Amino acid sequence: MSKPHIALIGMGLIGSSLGHALKKHDLAAHISGYALSPETRARALQLGFVDSVHDSAADASKGADIVFFNTPLSAIKPLAEEIIPVLDDHAILTDVGSVKKTVLDELTPLLQGRIHLVPGHPIAGTELSGPDAGFAELFDGRWCILTPSGDTSLIAVEEIAKLWRAMGSEVEFMEAGHHDLVLAITSHLPHLIAYNIVGTAAQLESDTRRDVIKYSASGFRDFTRIAASDPVMWRDIFIQNKEAVLEMLGRFSEDLTALQRAIRHGDGEYLENIFTTTRSIRKSVVEAGQDTDQPNFGRDQTPKS
Amino acid sequence: MSKPHIALIGMGLIGSSLGHALKKHDLAAHISGYALSPETRARALQLGFVDSVHDSAADASKGADIVFFNTPLSAIKPLAEEIIPVLDDHAILTDVGSVKKTVLDELTPLLQGRIHLVPGHPIAGTELSGPDAGFAELFDGRWCILTPSGDTSLIAVEEIAKLWRAMGSEVEFMEAGHHDLVLAITSHLPHLIAYNIVGTAAQLESDTRRDVIKYSASGFRDFTRIAASDPVMWRDIFIQNKEAVLEMLGRFSEDLTALQRAIRHGDGEYLENIFTTTRSIRKSVVEAGQDTDQPNFGRDQTPKS
Repeated sequence: MSKPHIALIGMGLIGSSLGHALKKHDLAAHISGYALSPETRARALQLGFVDSVHDSAADASKGADIVFFNTPLSAIKPLAEEIIPVLDDHAILTDVGSVKKTVLDELTPLLQGRIHLVPGHPIAGTELSGPDAGFAELFDGRWCILTPSGDTSLIAVEEIAKLWRAMGSEVEFMEAGHHDLVLAITSHLPHLIAYNIVGTAAQLESDTRRDVIKYSASGFRDFTRIAASDPVMWRDIFIQNKEAVLEMLGRFSEDLTALQRAIRHGDGEYLENIFTTTRSIRKSVVEAGQDTDQPNFGRDQTPKS
Repeated sequence: MSKPHIALIGMGLIGSSLGHALKKHDLAAHISGYALSPETRARALQLGFVDSVHDSAADASKGADIVFFNTPLSAIKPLAEEIIPVLDDHAILTDVGSVKKTVLDELTPLLQGRIHLVPGHPIAGTELSGPDAGFAELFDGRWCILTPSGDTSLIAVEEIAKLWRAMGSEVEFMEAGHHDLVLAITSHLPHLIAYNIVGTAAQLESDTRRDVIKYSASGFRDFTRIAASDPVMWRDIFIQNKEAVLEMLGRFSEDLTALQRAIRHGDGEYLENIFTTTRSIRKSVVEAGQDTDQPNFGRDQTPKS
């Protein structure tokens, strides 16, 4: 394939970062864009990470070689139903969603034997949302997991893999169900827990809540960052990865009950053992190059006023 | 009081940072130090944040005007029993522990009507431990909460407050029980949850666990930082702040059960509502100057290899 025409359906944090990265590395002959909100479409043109914007996903996808879905998960299926009839033969559908089995299950029956599907998930992001949040380096040095079914055209798969590599990502292939299980514990459960603890704090009496914000540097603030992520995107993730999330949540709750019991009974030995194990996991994460070893993430000492 | 002789009992992250800060701002006539381990004592002298080290806490405290306890909470009472008999009249005991009511309750009966007690808690730290982890700027621009009882000498209280202000902290006064409740939600519960989720991950089958570390940038890695904190220190915190921690944990678990139910029943509206509320708390934390507004804490994009 010579340089492809790429359509970006959804232009929030990930969609806009894709646009910037594709432009930076000169990977597309044309980038067309669609977003639900007219404001986002206008802003995308203004920021220049797309060459054209369109009033409908079908218009944005006409003539495209590759279509990227960068929307909340629940929007993908209806958009695919709208787009597929207008696509040329051999066009490739891909996405960036955090759950992969539902994308595969929902879209495969729609492909009419003439469209390729290569689901993907870049392990990259920030807590910010919207077209202004994107930047070309978001995927640089990060993993991108692709989960095509076994009978997908290898040429189509390689086309998508090549794009991600050109944007700086390292591509891994994984079975969709295994992806969803791994992400349930590395991403979905941490977000659920963060949303939950911040939600618990939000319901405190107002003077205590004020103090919680004031003294949040003692641990709580790390959770507020994750709990600032896009609400609609995360709503869809929990609903679409229900089974794996409930499985991991069940394990988490059992373990938490054991800790609670140890606290109630003053079982210091149990607590110390658990807290020692977890330290070695941090070491592995830093050794695997997945986080900085700077204390407090190396963030600046933020003055309190 | 002219420049005081200060004793540091415990020379880990906080003790060593105190030594460095006291020296940097020239706040002590002499700094003596004690730590349980001979290696820490030798290292402290080598690093130069104390002027002398001693084989016992009593020896380190002889002639001191101010004694700082920077040890795990469970060590404070036995050390105080050892130290108080050798202290001069009007010496001041203070500490840096994360639970304040037990310190007040345990030490007050030991004061013999001639020693002052001004419990304190600097809201500052990193996930690192030991004498090499300290630095003079740790307390700069951070809160320090003091929780003296109502009948403590105001001169003694002001003496300790003055020291913290000179090290760059902003001092707040609080009733010990209120401190323990606020910290239960801002600090103790977040640490418990982080320890727990990392512990849950540690028990996964080994191939899944390997993937969890590899893809930890999707949320999990933020929890591993907190879960790398000192195990003995945290064991003591949960045991000494049992009541407030169990109260907050009860609320957290109720809220988590409601989220779990919403996921099971596919109640997207409930999920989206909760996730929207929590976003505004992040905004308050950043506006209160308690965290950076840089995406991902402004940490460098960490390459995966």
